[in-house]
Amino acid sequence: MLLLRRCHSLTRFGSLITQRHQVTPAVASCAARLCSSSSSSEDHRSHQRVHSLSWKHGLAGLLAGTGAVLAYGLHHHHKAERADIGVQTLKKSSSLPVFSQEEVTKHRSLEDGIWVTYKGGVYDITEFVAMHPGGDKIMLAAGGALEPFWALYAVHNQEHVLEILSDYKVGELNLEDLKKQQAVKSSDPYSSDPERHPVLRINSLKPFNAEPPPEILSDSYITPSAFFFKRNHLPVPQVDPASYQLHVEGLPGGVLTLSLEDLKTRFPKHTITATLQCAGNRRSEMNKVKLVKGLNWGIAAISNATWSGARLRDVLLAAGYKPDVAQWARHVQFEGLDTDVTGTTYGASVPLNKAVSEEGDVLLAYEMNGEDIPPDHGFPVRVVVPGTVGARNVKWLGKIIVSAEESSSHWQQNDYKGFSPGTDWDTVDFKSAPAIQELPIQSAITTPADSATIDRSDETLTVKGYAWSGGGREVVRVDVSLDGGKTWQVAQLRSGEKGQAPEPSPPPGRAWAWKLWEITAPLPPDAQELEIVCKAVDNSYNMQPDTVPPIWNLRGVLSNAWHRVKVKIREDEDEE
Amino acid sequence: MLLLRRCHSLTRFGSLITQRHQVTPAVASCAARLCSSSSSSEDHRSHQRVHSLSWKHGLAGLLAGTGAVLAYGLHHHHKAERADIGVQTLKKSSSLPVFSQEEVTKHRSLEDGIWVTYKGGVYDITEFVAMHPGGDKIMLAAGGALEPFWALYAVHNQEHVLEILSDYKVGELNLEDLKKQQAVKSSDPYSSDPERHPVLRINSLKPFNAEPPPEILSDSYITPSAFFFKRNHLPVPQVDPASYQLHVEGLPGGVLTLSLEDLKTRFPKHTITATLQCAGNRRSEMNKVKLVKGLNWGIAAISNATWSGARLRDVLLAAGYKPDVAQWARHVQFEGLDTDVTGTTYGASVPLNKAVSEEGDVLLAYEMNGEDIPPDHGFPVRVVVPGTVGARNVKWLGKIIVSAEESSSHWQQNDYKGFSPGTDWDTVDFKSAPAIQELPIQSAITTPADSATIDRSDETLTVKGYAWSGGGREVVRVDVSLDGGKTWQVAQLRSGEKGQAPEPSPPPGRAWAWKLWEITAPLPPDAQELEIVCKAVDNSYNMQPDTVPPIWNLRGVLSNAWHRVKVKIREDEDEE
Repeated sequence: MLLLRRCHSLTRFGSLITQRHQVTPAVASCAARLCSSSSSSEDHRSHQRVHSLSWKHGLAGLLAGTGAVLAYGLHHHHKAERADIGVQTLKKSSSLPVFSQEEVTKHRSLEDGIWVTYKGGVYDITEFVAMHPGGDKIMLAAGGALEPFWALYAVHNQEHVLEILSDYKVGELNLEDLKKQQAVKSSDPYSSDPERHPVLRINSLKPFNAEPPPEILSDSYITPSAFFFKRNHLPVPQVDPASYQLHVEGLPGGVLTLSLEDLKTRFPKHTITATLQCAGNRRSEMNKVKLVKGLNWGIAAISNATWSGARLRDVLLAAGYKPDVAQWARHVQFEGLDTDVTGTTYGASVPLNKAVSEEGDVLLAYEMNGEDIPPDHGFPVRVVVPGTVGARNVKWLGKIIVSAEESSSHWQQNDYKGFSPGTDWDTVDFKSAPAIQELPIQSAITTPADSATIDRSDETLTVKGYAWSGGGREVVRVDVSLDGGKTWQVAQLRSGEKGQAPEPSPPPGRAWAWKLWEITAPLPPDAQELEIVCKAVDNSYNMQPDTVPPIWNLRGVLSNAWHRVKVKIREDEDEE
Repeated sequence: MLLLRRCHSLTRFGSLITQRHQVTPAVASCAARLCSSSSSSEDHRSHQRVHSLSWKHGLAGLLAGTGAVLAYGLHHHHKAERADIGVQTLKKSSSLPVFSQEEVTKHRSLEDGIWVTYKGGVYDITEFVAMHPGGDKIMLAAGGALEPFWALYAVHNQEHVLEILSDYKVGELNLEDLKKQQAVKSSDPYSSDPERHPVLRINSLKPFNAEPPPEILSDSYITPSAFFFKRNHLPVPQVDPASYQLHVEGLPGGVLTLSLEDLKTRFPKHTITATLQCAGNRRSEMNKVKLVKGLNWGIAAISNATWSGARLRDVLLAAGYKPDVAQWARHVQFEGLDTDVTGTTYGASVPLNKAVSEEGDVLLAYEMNGEDIPPDHGFPVRVVVPGTVGARNVKWLGKIIVSAEESSSHWQQNDYKGFSPGTDWDTVDFKSAPAIQELPIQSAITTPADSATIDRSDETLTVKGYAWSGGGREVVRVDVSLDGGKTWQVAQLRSGEKGQAPEPSPPPGRAWAWKLWEITAPLPPDAQELEIVCKAVDNSYNMQPDTVPPIWNLRGVLSNAWHRVKVKIREDEDEE
């Protein structure tokens, strides 16, 4: 993290107060960035808070645990010796003012102060931001509750962390807002939707569609399930795992019905690491060219997880699939248990050869990242069709149909297809284009963020991102340019958590997982602004197109042009 | 053909003489284009002639036979009535001057006159060019022999065609040059190389590397073998089919040796239509950015043929391949029978899973377009690895080795790999990039040619080309722009010969053949020049990159940016 690095370098000089003043512009810019969401998410901010209290998914080790604890300890020790800090350490709540959530929410920048709530207390942590061992991630909680973040970052579950927090207490949250933090279920079809992590940037609340902040996305090779982008088409169905049934139809032997227990015990458990990407990832860049229909996704409608389950191939064989079926069958259809008001289920299909191939690795997955699949991702069973657009990875799977025809669903027939930039809603013929299956080569820059400011004194710049290609094609190279595409350097690729051994190299055509990449390059001596660009290459040597307009399409799908980010370089003179 | 259409429209007005004068500038420009070859081909022109006498490959029906014959008849009838033609009809050869081949070669433009030779006679066909029913293709023979072209276009084998020709006789070819037209074999390693069609544009004579003119390439969905691009790395070996042996090694059962007869009789004959493309196709466009190492291919180092032979899968199974081999083996290596002076053979390898997959369709082919594979294309047996770069489709196949390692050949290890544009010969590490296997999405414009002139009175413009993608990915769309990429129209795709039923749609992932495409669009009213651009999309929705510089690489491979052609529009006023 640039900000974290800057914070660390600043602590070498001057007093804490001076440090804070020095760091203000950068932190403020960062805070502004972190707090700004996509156009539609602002409306959902209060909802996010309401639903953000309890977090089952303890994700220990997401931060480097030991280092962070040491840093906290160190801070606490220093802090105890300080006498010049203006914030009072108040332990008794009775003497403190009571604030509304609305008031707390106003404090989410260094200018207005950074407030957070925790178990009914209100804390002004403005002073603490620059010292936070976890860097600028603390800004994600600005104006809201700490609980969901601390649940994710288990390192906070220590007494001395609470002691540090108590130093910053400035008030109490009023009872009414505290109660609101317990979700009240309403009668609308989305009332039983699960709680989500408030860090997600919401593109649509009902159905729920949200993506993580980019800088969090590239922190982990395996995306924690809570941060994995969510793309629901309908309300999340509540499925009782004990009575769950999966029906397999269309084969000569008749219908095969399997319970969850059947899936887990009658078939070998197979695990893959696979990246899923929404066809609309990076749609916002197409919207800048000309408005399209669709959710305004940023660059993070893509995530990577491990998936375990029964192979679809094994289940189809058990249901009577034999090679001669391929003489008439061409597709395998999936129906979800999620329905609209008319009872129509979500549906999609994939080519039969992908479904039955030993090398296709299509799973009926019941685990995500080693745990039961969370409700938002298809509990208890979803299809994972690695290398294939998210829309075919049907969640809450209810039915599998071997068929001569593609799924007749809206999403297969009249959506998720690509068209020429010259095609508009008056001329489009959905039958003229194939349903998106494999996705093309993709990459994006997660750090630095667009419009960030880099200090000249940093001398180098670290750029990070992800790269992935569909169809099991392995990413073999990512080129990065700091001058808008005139000259290029090759980034380091990574296929595992940082500091850990990389995942074993996949067999040809089965590279289902993304690669994270990183490059540290000297700041160009005379530049005042950099246009950072990335482009990836897969092992079929497919490249990303240079620009957005020639791939623009009316649905805003398949947005995979070079990703571009502009940053400013601040000369040292400006600071002194 | 634009020129042909122009000729037809012109014959509606004025006398023949007037017509010729009107048409001169366009024909001259066209002639200049057709006669200009790539930089290196000029040196080989005389060689081409020497080797161009006999043509076994009768390719009847390449032109629409009936129409052309009617046109000839019509012409002959009109001609017989004419009295104002200046060229004398001379039947007796004794009274005619004798010319050297050198003198004939000087006459290959409308300015200098168009001369051709036929069976020792020299003919000035300048007058006839605008009337040729086959359009501007006649210019391909300018300054040389007619025989190889007439052998290809069987419609010429009629008495009245000879009568027409005789009208234009102006002399005799001297005996010495006539004898030279019988190839004299020398002692150099390339002396037994086969004869080639003189229409090919030679990029290198030894080894022989040549491509057809683009406008011929897109005339046929199945490229006639004589026109199929030739890419040899070494002299063509002379292989006796009766004693030919293929060795299959590396499997537990020991070495399997097969004769040509074994291949033809012990295994089912399997036929596919597959496009092969050289990794260096369109390299000349990279050379314009910055010089690269490699043959200066135009856009026609790609061709499409039907291939028949035994499946490699079947042969490997017969040689003892079992699934457990895949536990240690990863590659299948191929060695050619072509050798350099040290005895090193050409070699390459492909991933094992491609080789053994039922859907991989890898052939040990002994037929091309329904006949024995011609010497230049690997007689008697070559590997056809559909969807994979030409370099792995090893010709004159001598040995197959199942192996844990890739081929150690120069061409696998230190060639045919892609690099970042920032990588130069000082920094390149060939181990850092994967050997090219599947090729990326590709398309190019075959008609009109760059720098062609279009008449405003034509009102519409027809653009033609080809599109193909590697890995069995089907081309699903070609976008064409007449304004340099600002606006786009969708071209018509074709997967069969014109006027015939298209080939059946391939199963997913097995679209090995290209598509030809065509679009007829109104000429933009105010434009004086058009920048025509094409870009293709495959069913993984991979697109071509916009520009060449960002994909430039030191070997000039994988050149698949949008193809661009500039044409001028001539206003009617200019002509009158």
